[in-house]
Order: sequence, then C-alpha cells, then structure tokens
Amino acid sequence: MAFWFMENHTDNVVMSIKVKEQVYSEQSEYQRIDIFESEEFGRVLALDGIINLTEKDEFIYHEMITHVPMAVHPNPEHVLVVGAGDGGALRELGKYQSVQHIDLVEIDAALVAACRKYLPTTAIGYQDERVTVHNRDGLRFLRRLEDVYDLIIVDSTDPAGPGEILFTKEFYGSCYKALKQDGIMVNQHESPFYSYESAAMMRSYRRIRSAFPVLRVYQAHIPSYPSGHWLFGFASKKYDPLKDFDEKRWLAQGIQTRYYNTDLHRGTFCLPTYVRALLESE
Amino acid sequence: MAFWFMENHTDNVVMSIKVKEQVYSEQSEYQRIDIFESEEFGRVLALDGIINLTEKDEFIYHEMITHVPMAVHPNPEHVLVVGAGDGGALRELGKYQSVQHIDLVEIDAALVAACRKYLPTTAIGYQDERVTVHNRDGLRFLRRLEDVYDLIIVDSTDPAGPGEILFTKEFYGSCYKALKQDGIMVNQHESPFYSYESAAMMRSYRRIRSAFPVLRVYQAHIPSYPSGHWLFGFASKKYDPLKDFDEKRWLAQGIQTRYYNTDLHRGTFCLPTYVRALLESE
Repeated sequence: MAFWFMENHTDNVVMSIKVKEQVYSEQSEYQRIDIFESEEFGRVLALDGIINLTEKDEFIYHEMITHVPMAVHPNPEHVLVVGAGDGGALRELGKYQSVQHIDLVEIDAALVAACRKYLPTTAIGYQDERVTVHNRDGLRFLRRLEDVYDLIIVDSTDPAGPGEILFTKEFYGSCYKALKQDGIMVNQHESPFYSYESAAMMRSYRRIRSAFPVLRVYQAHIPSYPSGHWLFGFASKKYDPLKDFDEKRWLAQGIQTRYYNTDLHRGTFCLPTYVRALLESE
Repeated sequence: MAFWFMENHTDNVVMSIKVKEQVYSEQSEYQRIDIFESEEFGRVLALDGIINLTEKDEFIYHEMITHVPMAVHPNPEHVLVVGAGDGGALRELGKYQSVQHIDLVEIDAALVAACRKYLPTTAIGYQDERVTVHNRDGLRFLRRLEDVYDLIIVDSTDPAGPGEILFTKEFYGSCYKALKQDGIMVNQHESPFYSYESAAMMRSYRRIRSAFPVLRVYQAHIPSYPSGHWLFGFASKKYDPLKDFDEKRWLAQGIQTRYYNTDLHRGTFCLPTYVRALLESE
C-alpha cells in the first residue's frame, strides 16, 4: 500500500510524489496546510495542495531569494521578510553579521507553528534573536512605514489565496515607500514555462516596473516547482544587481552555500531568449 | 475518458502527461518507440518509456547542444551527430552557412523513419542537403576515423539500451581521435539532481576528462526531463568555451533562436555550488 501526493502542474501535467507518512494536516483560517514525509524529497510542505517547499530542494529557493540581494547591498542592516512562514529565508539572512534586525510578517500563525514543529531545518531561522515575528497582513503592516528597510524579501505563495495581495500594485508601492533611498526588494517571480505561472510572472513584472526604477529578473532550477524553471525579481531604487555586485565583499564574509556562488550570481541574470521576449512584451 | 502517459523520474516521483491521441508505437530492433499527441507538450517521443523530446520544449535541448559549440569553433565545416534520430540537432546545424557536411549516425532506422513521418518540426533537419544519414552503431562508425570532424555532437539517450555505448571510455577516445586538432565534442551530460542521472553525470564527466584536455559542463532548463535541470558537457582539444567564444562572430550570422543567446552562453557555465562539488569530487 502506498499514498501518493499529486499536484496538477497544469490541467494536463501532474507531478506525483510517494508519501511515507502524513505528518500534519490542518485547515487554518487562511489555507489548508499539509506536511508529509516522502522518500525522495524528505518532508514536504503543501499549502492548498500546492508544494511550497521540500527539504531536498528548499535550499535553492531560499539561497537565491536571499543571497543575490544581500551580495549587492553594501550594508544591509534592516530587513523585512513578507510571507515565508517556514523560516528558510530567515536562516539564510542569519548568516550575515551586518543584519541588525529582521521583521517577519506572515499572516498565518498556524503555518508558523506547524513549520516550527515539523520543519526544523528551515524553521531554525526563527531561533535568531534578531527576528521579530508579526502575524499580520503584509500590506497593512507596510502601509504606514517609510524609509525603514534596506531589503524587503517578498516570499509569497502563488497569486491565489492569502498570497494574492502580495502581487498587487498597491503592495509594491508600499514596499517602495518602506525602503530606504537605496533599498532593494526581491520577490518570487513565478515561472515562464506553463501558462498559469507565466501570466502571473508578466503581471508581477509589469506592476513592479511601474513602482521601481530598476527591475531585473533572475532564474534558478527548483525541481519540485512546476517546470523546475523558477524566477525571482530584483527591484531596487538605485543598485544594479550586476554593476553594484561586490564579489570580494561577499566572499570575505565566509558564508556557506550549496547553490549560490558569486559566479552563479552573474549567470543567473542571463535569461533564455523566450523569457526575455515575454518580459519585453510587457 | 483520458489516457495518461506516466514516467517514473525516480521510484518515488512520477510525471504524468495527459494524452490526446496515440500516434505511433513500435518495438524496433533496438527499442520501443512511442509517439503521442498531448495537450500541454504537443507531440511527445518516448523511447523505452522515457521522454526523449516534446514539441514544446525540444528547442531548448537542441539549441543548447548545438549553438554553444558552434559559437566557440571559429570555422566548423565538418560535423558528426551521433544518436538524435529526431533531426533536431540537424535543424539547428542547418542554420550555419559555414557547415559543409553533416554525418548523422543513428543506429535505429525505424526511429529515423518514425520521426520523419510524425515529428516534422524536428525532422525538417533531414531536408538539408549537407546531411548524410548512417544507420550504424556510433562506436563502429567512429573507430577508424582520424582527424575528420570539427565538431561531434553526442545526442544520446540515457546510458541504458542502445545509448549505453555512447557513454564509454572507448567511445570518447574514438571521438577524440576522429576530431581535428582543434575539434570540439559536446554531449548530453545527464542531470545533477536525482541519483540515477547524477551517477551517470559523474561517470560521463570522469571518462570524458580522461580523454580530453578541456571539459566544462553547462546547464539548461528542460521541463520535460527529470528535475528539469539538465547538463551538457563541452569537451575540446584546445578551445575554451568562454575565452574562445566570439560573440560578434556569432551575432553577425543572424541566427534566430528561442532559448540560446550570447548573454546566456556566458551564464550557462555558471553552475550551482552543489553541482560543482559533485563534479570536483570526480
């Protein structure tokens, strides 16, 4: 007997993962939260039936959403992470001595509790004393803030359910306002390959570009996500992710990574022609 | 009622694609050949139950296995393609005026015939008058050749069935011998993520490195392949894929591509830390 978790990547493509054991399942106020143990991916977190992370490949996502902007900003001290109840981005941020304070805004307290209990290798990020957790709506949290953060990481789910608001023009405008004059915002930017994600990618791109003077998209291989081809958006008021990237400064900090490296930092912004064309059509 | 094609990416991970219509199925002398029509990927070619190509994403594979070496070699005139009965690599090579002659060695004549009939957008490569098709074993074809080719493209299946011989030390040695003194060999180099492909990747890397002085691995996003993270090996007697890459020369040829571009050429060699570590451990 075996259980299989099945996720529709499109109506016509399904990814199935063999389940060893169901670990946790809850309908929170905001979403259905499931955690299960699998042979291939270790523990898997699914939100509303969509894989949010797996223990096997979450390092790719969390390193790429964190180290790319952290290697560009010359002195990131105050960081906001929106979404990301799992704590993986906190774990990566915790590797930097320059960081003085991290606000984590995650609307769903039940998700934070479940991750702290059942996903210890990502939730270890919560143990950092510099972290303050706010179980609030991201947009409301940001609305009245001005000139506060050096970096905002928008670690959202897909633009459906509780993550939808994190893809709006108003939200990106509030991020812009809450950033200091040389601030950076990075978001998970969906995927170019299947139509659902590529439509979300193009909307996100268009809206961020209307709020920020600098926007560059970069990519990574994340096998547990639809198509495995995932994008991130690097938006900033001032810094260019390549011209202002200081390789020596990053290397001097001695940070250990399994996916990110300074060579890959340059390569990750080199997008396929069809992805460029989609973005340029916006 | 619906048919689903299901491929085990590992014993514990399955990718399923909804089938509109079965187009062709045959047990040839060498392998089981299936072609079906799907909603998401267009026509799909499966060999022994493993996806070899889909109409939706084959451009990624074929552009990357062809244009990367073609943009490095200063004057590629004589090219050998081993495997690749579908004709996709021939189609990409056909875009170069410098090419005088292409030998295509594919052991399975039934595969060539099926692709010519049912996969016209890749098999269009066969219409090039510079192509000679040899339905022979790749190693036997190469054995007595010396100093003949500028480029050899090893477009093999996984190292099982008829493709197995194309991963041997003897085969790589024969390629070396058959290349001119500044020749390049490129191969499909499997994937770093799941254990079956990463073991094949490391074996291939080790064996090619013992035959060629230059070996660099590069990567692409190929959604229909296991994990979506696929690698290629660039081996050569002399040329470095970055130092000897002449962007202006390539751009001057006005070649149209949907994935490859000269920016991506540089980015594709920037590998994740864990992939570097796997290769360096060899």
